[in-house]
Amino acid sequence: MTTEPQPEHSGHSDHTDTTGKPSAGPAPRPHGFSRRRLIASAAAAGGTGVVGAVAGFGVGRSGAEDRAEAEPSRDLTGANGPATVPFYGPHQSGVETPPQAHAHFLALTLKPGIKAADVVRWLRLLTADAAALTQGSGPLADSEPELASDPARLTVTFGFGRGLVELAGGKSVPKWLGPLEKFPIDDLDSDRCTGDLLLQICGDDPLTLAHAWRMLWKDSRNFAEVAWQRDGFRRSYGSQGEGKTQRNLFGQLDGTANPGPGSEDFARLVWGQSTGRKDAVHSARGEPPANLGAHLPEWMRGGTTLVLRDIAMNLDTWDKADRPAREFATGRTLDKGAPLSGTDEFDAPDFTAVDKRGLTKISAASHVARARDGLGPETQIHRRTFNYETGAGQGAGLLFASFQADIERQYLPIQRRLAEVDLLNEWTTPIGSSVWAIPPGIKEGEYIGQSLFEG
Amino acid sequence: MTTEPQPEHSGHSDHTDTTGKPSAGPAPRPHGFSRRRLIASAAAAGGTGVVGAVAGFGVGRSGAEDRAEAEPSRDLTGANGPATVPFYGPHQSGVETPPQAHAHFLALTLKPGIKAADVVRWLRLLTADAAALTQGSGPLADSEPELASDPARLTVTFGFGRGLVELAGGKSVPKWLGPLEKFPIDDLDSDRCTGDLLLQICGDDPLTLAHAWRMLWKDSRNFAEVAWQRDGFRRSYGSQGEGKTQRNLFGQLDGTANPGPGSEDFARLVWGQSTGRKDAVHSARGEPPANLGAHLPEWMRGGTTLVLRDIAMNLDTWDKADRPAREFATGRTLDKGAPLSGTDEFDAPDFTAVDKRGLTKISAASHVARARDGLGPETQIHRRTFNYETGAGQGAGLLFASFQADIERQYLPIQRRLAEVDLLNEWTTPIGSSVWAIPPGIKEGEYIGQSLFEG
Repeated sequence: MTTEPQPEHSGHSDHTDTTGKPSAGPAPRPHGFSRRRLIASAAAAGGTGVVGAVAGFGVGRSGAEDRAEAEPSRDLTGANGPATVPFYGPHQSGVETPPQAHAHFLALTLKPGIKAADVVRWLRLLTADAAALTQGSGPLADSEPELASDPARLTVTFGFGRGLVELAGGKSVPKWLGPLEKFPIDDLDSDRCTGDLLLQICGDDPLTLAHAWRMLWKDSRNFAEVAWQRDGFRRSYGSQGEGKTQRNLFGQLDGTANPGPGSEDFARLVWGQSTGRKDAVHSARGEPPANLGAHLPEWMRGGTTLVLRDIAMNLDTWDKADRPAREFATGRTLDKGAPLSGTDEFDAPDFTAVDKRGLTKISAASHVARARDGLGPETQIHRRTFNYETGAGQGAGLLFASFQADIERQYLPIQRRLAEVDLLNEWTTPIGSSVWAIPPGIKEGEYIGQSLFEG
Repeated sequence: MTTEPQPEHSGHSDHTDTTGKPSAGPAPRPHGFSRRRLIASAAAAGGTGVVGAVAGFGVGRSGAEDRAEAEPSRDLTGANGPATVPFYGPHQSGVETPPQAHAHFLALTLKPGIKAADVVRWLRLLTADAAALTQGSGPLADSEPELASDPARLTVTFGFGRGLVELAGGKSVPKWLGPLEKFPIDDLDSDRCTGDLLLQICGDDPLTLAHAWRMLWKDSRNFAEVAWQRDGFRRSYGSQGEGKTQRNLFGQLDGTANPGPGSEDFARLVWGQSTGRKDAVHSARGEPPANLGAHLPEWMRGGTTLVLRDIAMNLDTWDKADRPAREFATGRTLDKGAPLSGTDEFDAPDFTAVDKRGLTKISAASHVARARDGLGPETQIHRRTFNYETGAGQGAGLLFASFQADIERQYLPIQRRLAEVDLLNEWTTPIGSSVWAIPPGIKEGEYIGQSLFEG
């Protein structure tokens, strides 16, 4: 039973796609840029389309012409440099965008005495910065604009903490916007649980990223102090491309069960906007998909929620576990990430399958069983994780960014079960935890948070 | 006046190229790998060759066949993942290799009581690890071999400090192997100037790199403590490809004057092995190129020296300088990196050129004038630099790795002049400094340092 499809992005006629399909951006280049932009765009789209696009590039034009026009200082392996993700749109980028290779999470605390009008000025400034930087241009105050010219899918995603939303006044402050309930597995460092504004700055190029977050920080120093920050990484675009399930520092494939960007599930589970399309996951009883975003205040329509957990991983003790022990703990094979009941990464886990001895193939205490067995189809989150490792003999872990329309219905049931029993807890310790309201995207001329401060 | 060409790599018949041309490595893959390897190899070779190779891939085979054989989980933009740099060869890799996107510098200090025989065991272990990891395989003790499978031009370069060389006994200890003379610009942190063994671990993929240095650290813990470590970065392979002159965090193009990989100049200036080829730079008096490596002890033949400077950059005060002031200080334009006397990055600076007012276009106190004017053609170094930025409000700078055959004749004349006068010193402070002997490369079956311990 499904309802009729409805337009998903009504009222935003000038909005563009902020999913996994970065367009070639208007990064200013002196000349000879349009063709490269085309290539970059095709390449950035990923998958087999790239083979076609690149082959087509060779087939459709003579080699001599290609050589004459090609700039010797740029080759196809660098095609991701000019790739941009649209900044404007109904949703902020950096959520549905396939995770980039690098992330800088910068949590900021408002300085004493800062008023709502100051925050608006600050958000206008940061919006202008982000709009320019993500499209490959230095913002006005940028004295090194050359460092902005290879955006490489740069995104800037704003998250609001409770303090900032309360300061806006007049608007409903969601009750979930604050510390999560305490879990027995937590060993939280209070310095990693604070902040009024979160900037999640992601990109495929580390130099572009470093410049971008410094620009944003420069324009924040009058308004806020650093609460905490973390650099995270995944495989580089050049080594693996985008949008693949990737491994964390335990060697596990991480994020297999995520809803796919652009899917009906994504719209419903993350943006809380059910379109009733036929590919929606129904409940076990065949009920129509719930509108998971119904609880969100009006100023958050088109937005979502972010639970950001800093999970320390004890690589030294993990090293001491052999591969069967690790696979037993996770419920998946280490090589392919297949559930122990199946053979392929994307096989649905069968929690009833038994081996020759009559034991379930997937332990009921394993991570995958605890995270998924017995939970309804709505109890899903969108993970966007980044590894961190700060040095030999120092900390390593995972920045676990979980986006979902409804923390109470989607995130917490999973987290409560994992906190109760999960064999993986032996090697992991949450040391940071924060909750953020992700406001909606904007149109040109607006600023991020406008619906909160002026809506 | 030149001498006859001589074989450069005599006595190493099985050695392969360790310059900027990474070959496709024997990374173990279950199936379907050979074609991708070919593509990756072509792509890794860079330049216009890539356009040809990729186009040829499309042209020479039917689209249907490609689609059938292509793994949907890998696209051409990820072609750099399987690219390898040979580990064995007359020289260590990671010197002539065009700098990768990421570096981890790990300096280690021998534990008390460690003897020469222990060091040999350790070096054998690290050699085996590096030989496997750089070619895309996990070493024997690796319990996450999947994290090794995308080497992405991983290299591991070993440097020996004075303590390790003295421990070997019996071999001449170079007098230059120890702290540099004190420069008035230095404000050294003694914790960043120590170490008996340096591992310079570089690669284009941050996950592969993190796994690699952790494997090397794991196999070092019984022998050594961490002296200091730094992560550095450059533009990603995916955004810019390899081998381009890149910008540092000041926005300057950095490394323009480097000798080209594979050139006679490189062989002479870095490896200290003049082949007398005609492309050698002669002195102003037309004298044949000096054998700059003549002073190196026998166990270092095929090796070189590394001066590693950790240069803090004050981005906040640099921000306050306008572009004309910055260009005046560096002697080059910020956009193209052209000397102020010319128009192109690779124009030779003309230190006598004057403007309409009769003033020299390049200030005699500028960085380029101080670094280059009046110094002979031998006074050149090979810079292999990485940026670092540890967080908003924290330190930023440049890991300045300078390779040269002769520190006294090549590095010190430049450094002394820059320490005396260089307008850039206003914004930079050397906070770390160390000197390393880079032993030669090895053949399969040998270990790095064998010429020192058993030669």
